[in-house]
Amino acid sequence: MTVELNAARAGGRAPNALRAVTITRNYTRHAEGSVLIEFGGTKVLCTASVEEKVPPHKRGSGQGWVTAEYGMLPRATHTRSDREAARGKQSGRTQEIQRLIGRSLRCVFDLSLLGERTIALDCDVIQADGGTRTAAITGAYVAAHDAVTWLLAQGKITQSPIRDAVAAISVGIVGGVPLLDLEYTEDSACDTDMNVVMTAAGGFVELQGTAEGVAFSRQEMNALLDLAEQGITDLLAAQRRALGI
Amino acid sequence: MTVELNAARAGGRAPNALRAVTITRNYTRHAEGSVLIEFGGTKVLCTASVEEKVPPHKRGSGQGWVTAEYGMLPRATHTRSDREAARGKQSGRTQEIQRLIGRSLRCVFDLSLLGERTIALDCDVIQADGGTRTAAITGAYVAAHDAVTWLLAQGKITQSPIRDAVAAISVGIVGGVPLLDLEYTEDSACDTDMNVVMTAAGGFVELQGTAEGVAFSRQEMNALLDLAEQGITDLLAAQRRALGI
Amino acid sequence: MTVELNAARAGGRAPNALRAVTITRNYTRHAEGSVLIEFGGTKVLCTASVEEKVPPHKRGSGQGWVTAEYGMLPRATHTRSDREAARGKQSGRTQEIQRLIGRSLRCVFDLSLLGERTIALDCDVIQADGGTRTAAITGAYVAAHDAVTWLLAQGKITQSPIRDAVAAISVGIVGGVPLLDLEYTEDSACDTDMNVVMTAAGGFVELQGTAEGVAFSRQEMNALLDLAEQGITDLLAAQRRALGI
Amino acid sequence: MTVELNAARAGGRAPNALRAVTITRNYTRHAEGSVLIEFGGTKVLCTASVEEKVPPHKRGSGQGWVTAEYGMLPRATHTRSDREAARGKQSGRTQEIQRLIGRSLRCVFDLSLLGERTIALDCDVIQADGGTRTAAITGAYVAAHDAVTWLLAQGKITQSPIRDAVAAISVGIVGGVPLLDLEYTEDSACDTDMNVVMTAAGGFVELQGTAEGVAFSRQEMNALLDLAEQGITDLLAAQRRALGI
Amino acid sequence: MTVELNAARAGGRAPNALRAVTITRNYTRHAEGSVLIEFGGTKVLCTASVEEKVPPHKRGSGQGWVTAEYGMLPRATHTRSDREAARGKQSGRTQEIQRLIGRSLRCVFDLSLLGERTIALDCDVIQADGGTRTAAITGAYVAAHDAVTWLLAQGKITQSPIRDAVAAISVGIVGGVPLLDLEYTEDSACDTDMNVVMTAAGGFVELQGTAEGVAFSRQEMNALLDLAEQGITDLLAAQRRALGI
Amino acid sequence: MTVELNAARAGGRAPNALRAVTITRNYTRHAEGSVLIEFGGTKVLCTASVEEKVPPHKRGSGQGWVTAEYGMLPRATHTRSDREAARGKQSGRTQEIQRLIGRSLRCVFDLSLLGERTIALDCDVIQADGGTRTAAITGAYVAAHDAVTWLLAQGKITQSPIRDAVAAISVGIVGGVPLLDLEYTEDSACDTDMNVVMTAAGGFVELQGTAEGVAFSRQEMNALLDLAEQGITDLLAAQRRALGI
Repeated sequence: MTVELNAARAGGRAPNALRAVTITRNYTRHAEGSVLIEFGGTKVLCTASVEEKVPPHKRGSGQGWVTAEYGMLPRATHTRSDREAARGKQSGRTQEIQRLIGRSLRCVFDLSLLGERTIALDCDVIQADGGTRTAAITGAYVAAHDAVTWLLAQGKITQSPIRDAVAAISVGIVGGVPLLDLEYTEDSACDTDMNVVMTAAGGFVELQGTAEGVAFSRQEMNALLDLAEQGITDLLAAQRRALGI
Repeated sequence: MTVELNAARAGGRAPNALRAVTITRNYTRHAEGSVLIEFGGTKVLCTASVEEKVPPHKRGSGQGWVTAEYGMLPRATHTRSDREAARGKQSGRTQEIQRLIGRSLRCVFDLSLLGERTIALDCDVIQADGGTRTAAITGAYVAAHDAVTWLLAQGKITQSPIRDAVAAISVGIVGGVPLLDLEYTEDSACDTDMNVVMTAAGGFVELQGTAEGVAFSRQEMNALLDLAEQGITDLLAAQRRALGI
Repeated sequence: MTVELNAARAGGRAPNALRAVTITRNYTRHAEGSVLIEFGGTKVLCTASVEEKVPPHKRGSGQGWVTAEYGMLPRATHTRSDREAARGKQSGRTQEIQRLIGRSLRCVFDLSLLGERTIALDCDVIQADGGTRTAAITGAYVAAHDAVTWLLAQGKITQSPIRDAVAAISVGIVGGVPLLDLEYTEDSACDTDMNVVMTAAGGFVELQGTAEGVAFSRQEMNALLDLAEQGITDLLAAQRRALGI
Repeated sequence: MTVELNAARAGGRAPNALRAVTITRNYTRHAEGSVLIEFGGTKVLCTASVEEKVPPHKRGSGQGWVTAEYGMLPRATHTRSDREAARGKQSGRTQEIQRLIGRSLRCVFDLSLLGERTIALDCDVIQADGGTRTAAITGAYVAAHDAVTWLLAQGKITQSPIRDAVAAISVGIVGGVPLLDLEYTEDSACDTDMNVVMTAAGGFVELQGTAEGVAFSRQEMNALLDLAEQGITDLLAAQRRALGI
Repeated sequence: MTVELNAARAGGRAPNALRAVTITRNYTRHAEGSVLIEFGGTKVLCTASVEEKVPPHKRGSGQGWVTAEYGMLPRATHTRSDREAARGKQSGRTQEIQRLIGRSLRCVFDLSLLGERTIALDCDVIQADGGTRTAAITGAYVAAHDAVTWLLAQGKITQSPIRDAVAAISVGIVGGVPLLDLEYTEDSACDTDMNVVMTAAGGFVELQGTAEGVAFSRQEMNALLDLAEQGITDLLAAQRRALGI
Repeated sequence: MTVELNAARAGGRAPNALRAVTITRNYTRHAEGSVLIEFGGTKVLCTASVEEKVPPHKRGSGQGWVTAEYGMLPRATHTRSDREAARGKQSGRTQEIQRLIGRSLRCVFDLSLLGERTIALDCDVIQADGGTRTAAITGAYVAAHDAVTWLLAQGKITQSPIRDAVAAISVGIVGGVPLLDLEYTEDSACDTDMNVVMTAAGGFVELQGTAEGVAFSRQEMNALLDLAEQGITDLLAAQRRALGI
């Protein structure tokens, strides 16, 4: 399969352009934070639930916990996938992604300011078109922020445990060209795929690069990181706009 | 808990009134049928996926199959529920509901006209406020109809296997008063809860009545069925409007 | 398959006749209540076990709990079924049935009079010939009654928590004829199948009707309920005879 | 706990006496062989099901297979045990027992005379009072014999694949005294427990001895084997009487 | 397959000879006891872990517990076996073996002298060539002994809970000849296979004999036990040499 | 916890020094490739098994497959971990690691030259002291190389499908100092942890960096990559020495 990307990127998108990003808060009614985030055709519902309990390893510590789970509706994808609940277990891919989301969010939380409670982030993909894990992290931050605002309004905490903002984007090399924010057809065709998670302060939280078939050079990696830094700057701005801060 | 329903039904709703029903087709992109159905605050995404295979008991029969799976996002409800995929199994309630949806839809299909393929209906509750299983059946019918239209357009079948329309509604007795289309607070307070599935031709497909604490009389049952027949008539009209038929 | 039922009902049974009902108490030695119930060729062993604990949602409530589990021996049926313990999970059908039995029995119990203890009802099908769930409910009531008598005799409770008797029967339409208490060949051939659970006071506890292929009318439903009411009256009498009350 | 056995063996049973053995053929209706076997208060239903398939390692071999599964109804015992189907797995004890039954029966079968089919033996304990696995083996042989008779009558095989009869008994040392056929209270109190499986030709098929707390001497083992040989002789006679051969 | 054993036993080994036995203590670094035991080509790593907790049935009893788990690396065997962790359950064989190891070790422990703590024995087969369960028992004893020495040195206990030494060996009849310590090719060809567990005091702890195809006589059993007693005497000496006692 | 690393690195190791690397081929007998690799106190047994089958998505493709599984013996670590086979599932961490190993090895294979067969790599940690996944990748390459040599010697393939060598190392920042090849105490104390997989040709195959608490800068990342490149060069040399090429 030949992918002529400069010519063909969907909608004439530039290699260094994000897809349209939409962040809708209060998307559902019950959760303390509920955000639908869209990266083009990728739509992920991120809810933040406050639970007055912590996992065993945090009991009695005075500290809270932030955790994440990830799922994909069976027909979020081009062809129907088995429902994980029916198969009786989560795939390795699902577990890998939800561990990534959890680590990324915990990195910007001061757990001792949260008190002995949990913020549970559920990221469910309604429609998939590449970049679901990066959209999930970016949206989960906004949902977590709303849950913290709720905790402050309820008087359950008096100081925000959020130390920094966090967002994520994918980058990759397709047909030799470094591209920002891969959609599904690009992701399938790419030689190298990298997911980058960064804070507003400019540091890396997670960095996961994978060569698909051909190893990548340090120079290529640097080009990808340049793209990612720029994209994440835009996502952090979109988060602030959505939160009105 | 005392529920003064004539006075207090949310939004001044009459005992025999449905909540606002909204049916949005093509809600997501990939499925052959994709419908978001809303019964007031209850929102269920119903997708219909065409798969060119049948389960073992239909192989070689020349007949197709219609099946359903049901799920609820963890924070669709007031308090977060465990994710079934993480727990490693579907609850008895989930299995009961998805079997009900499957039977209800199969009842209006001529499986021999479908050919040896499956229509898989996925009903995922995005937000719950009572009546999720009846919304799922009502929405799944529309999604299945769209999938059949797609099959006809593709030339995969030449005649529709759909013999009749099907819709469902809940009814119940709360504080002695028969009510149509229970929302969550009513469902929790009710003495008797009945789910009714009917066809456009006026027949019953499924009828599941449960007394919560106090058994119900035949007279009460008849009052509930009168309500249900009326509500289903309205739902069938809403389906036709949504489908433009 | 053509079923000429007036002519052919096994043993010349009338459409409105139950099969021979046999209730044997103290069938096994260890359980506080142990009943073998037979509806013709259907044989279900129902044991009631008193356990001095309650599930989490009842702890500290001062109330008890009544629950049920259902199983079928692998060769209770015409052809051998997989053993659920070996497959590693209970089928959806099994879960549906055991939830039905539990709800039906709880409906006649005043759980606050039971104290913080559980009556666990195990309904195991030794031989199946249709109507296993209705036989299970009818027999489980007798076993539960024996367990309550034991609790009273032990001085663990001073007042019976049983408020009413409960029994169940299946009805269905086969070849256009409403029939009471379907046996396996009738159940397989029927257009409509309904399981009805009623109390001695005459109220409905559960009502589950399913159309197999053809929807049923309200008139047909009324004919079925007439049959069911009559059959349940006979079953309640058989329970009383077995209990000597 | 002191057990004075010569004085106290239930019903004045002699150390070398079996409990009453009852073998009821055709106990249930559907299986090709169906036997209820009772060793005193221990009751096991053994069914033999003929299946026209073999497990993968026998496919295309021209040989058949004999296999066994074992289960215990939840309230077969003094206190209720969890249902294995509900827990989602069979215990190590259950697997150990069903593997023992399967090996014991295969030892008397010429699998090449069975043809490519399986005899599946289901041994379900209705009531337990010690010795369930030995009763299961002894009863399963009779059920398997009936299934073979059915296969011959159907013309599916022309020569019996059964080469010998097989039966089993438990023996143990309780309070220093070697005893035959332990019931539950004896089994709980014993120092050494041995299960012995033998053929009519007098050979050992399986021998499983376990010291509970105190190791046993070779002399003790010889005394136990003497008891077992005698008990198995009686069981083999009971099998022949039941089979009328 | 004809096995001419007197002529062909690998390396000219005599029928009553053990393979070379090697016991390496402190094989890994973290466990309180860590032993690699080799019976010829069979290599099992046995670790003993001290855990300051007991299973539920021992809580509050003042007594400790000794338990064992067994595993086989996927390519310990001639052809690769599925990894049990990936399949999601332990096989019946694995459970049978780990229960045997646990019982064998508990038999030589005075659990009341251990205090409320557990010694967990993990026996993992690195390379398999027959006799893995007997090597595991023999090695686990040495590892348990080292864990007890550690407990004494730590001052956690003041008296050893070990009452006796325990070791195990396999014996079998191959081509009519009784053989000690079967290796894989002999085990596959044998008519009768027996695993014998004995204490230094000369008593039997476990005895598991299985006929493969042909039942065995009492005389054959006696010949096998003679071989086993002799082999276990040698193994107990090897344990003492390894422990320097 | 303060870690003074220049002063305290175990054994006076320099920040840019690997621990002692030992690669032992033919460590076990049955596998086509069997390698024990040691990075200091970390010991991983890597076996390569040739299987004449491929997973479903490769059937009929003419291509082979390379896959990996990872496990840790329960007491490979400081405190005993639950056995995954006993718990009934692999942890998210285990799945993440075995997916990483598989992708890393596939990246240097030309699957079309392998033919329709699988090389299954089993990486089992015998003793853990940090860096188990990087040791596993580095050792698995040597085992896979031996399996390919075996395939060539057997005449099953005529050309090696291995296109390049691959090795992996961990790097991290501890107390502000970039370190190569973290051992357990360093790994537990580090701010940033990165696993790097590279080929002999100098390209990156996988790159996984995680901030523990504090995000890392691009400059820090570059320092880490410099260390990693140097360490991998040494590991590739060690592989060649072990293979004698």
